Amino acid sequence: MVNFELADGIAVLERTPATLRALLAGLPDAWISTDEGPNTFSPFDNVGHLIHGERTDWIPRATIILAQGADRRFTPYDRFAQVRESQGKTLAELLDEFARLRAENIATLRGWNLSDREFALEGDHPELGTVTLRELLATWVAHDLGHVAQTARVMAKRYRDAVGPWRAYLPVLDR
Amino acid sequence: MVNFELADGIAVLERTPATLRALLAGLPDAWISTDEGPNTFSPFDNVGHLIHGERTDWIPRATIILAQGADRRFTPYDRFAQVRESQGKTLAELLDEFARLRAENIATLRGWNLSDREFALEGDHPELGTVTLRELLATWVAHDLGHVAQTARVMAKRYRDAVGPWRAYLPVLDR
Repeated sequence: MVNFELADGIAVLERTPATLRALLAGLPDAWISTDEGPNTFSPFDNVGHLIHGERTDWIPRATIILAQGADRRFTPYDRFAQVRESQGKTLAELLDEFARLRAENIATLRGWNLSDREFALEGDHPELGTVTLRELLATWVAHDLGHVAQTARVMAKRYRDAVGPWRAYLPVLDR
Repeated sequence: MVNFELADGIAVLERTPATLRALLAGLPDAWISTDEGPNTFSPFDNVGHLIHGERTDWIPRATIILAQGADRRFTPYDRFAQVRESQGKTLAELLDEFARLRAENIATLRGWNLSDREFALEGDHPELGTVTLRELLATWVAHDLGHVAQTARVMAKRYRDAVGPWRAYLPVLDR
């Protein structure tokens, strides 16, 4: 079993903005706005969703856990906040905003100099119950990678018909 | 239905080397070598597999189609060639090699100045039967995106246990 370790996790967290920039910046809009149907995320939505997480999820929840106050319950996460928050913005603006917020949040995380005792501190997730700071930080990393995978998958599906019989060899097109 | 169009497809093809570089270059080895079990691809394997495709699949097969010779049958593709070919190489070397080969292949593709008549030309896939050049080129794009998605997914699974109860919210961990 692999536990979250700070340097190991930050190595991924600090690469996600550049990964999404390399994948998406400057692409024709058809690639940016494609999705998997109603209430699914386009690549554009994915970046907005990650920005919302930087603002409201990971560091704010870690702060609640570290404070160990009487109420350690997290604010529920709005999975569709980006529909509102990204409105009127360009992808280039979102990529810049995500990179800036992520850099600030990694600096905050590093600045905490967390100890093993602190990694084990608990918070109260509104649906999942008791969770530890270590699990929250591991989730931040896995969540990033999930949205990189989702972004690439959503894009691949744009060519689901175009590949003809090769669809049988490309499981990503039917995931 | 979205058809493959040259500029639309190249926009993705030319971004894949930088995307994988942003995601992987300089990561601790545990992230690069993690996989999903026997006969599955690690991030390192994914890059080697893409290199093998640059050398033996996309442009060579397109060349067979464009020649329209008597025998238009493709050489079968070795999905595990990279195990042999990547041996002794570093990830940094593979990322450089992939970027160089991809740039050369895109230059070749652009240089062909393909017409609609040529996009419709056919080749003979050893298992799938008759396929068109347009389908082959669309598959090149979707295959790239599938391996970006796979690379991120394989990495995410490294934290499958570390995320604790959040696993229920992260479908990428069980795909």
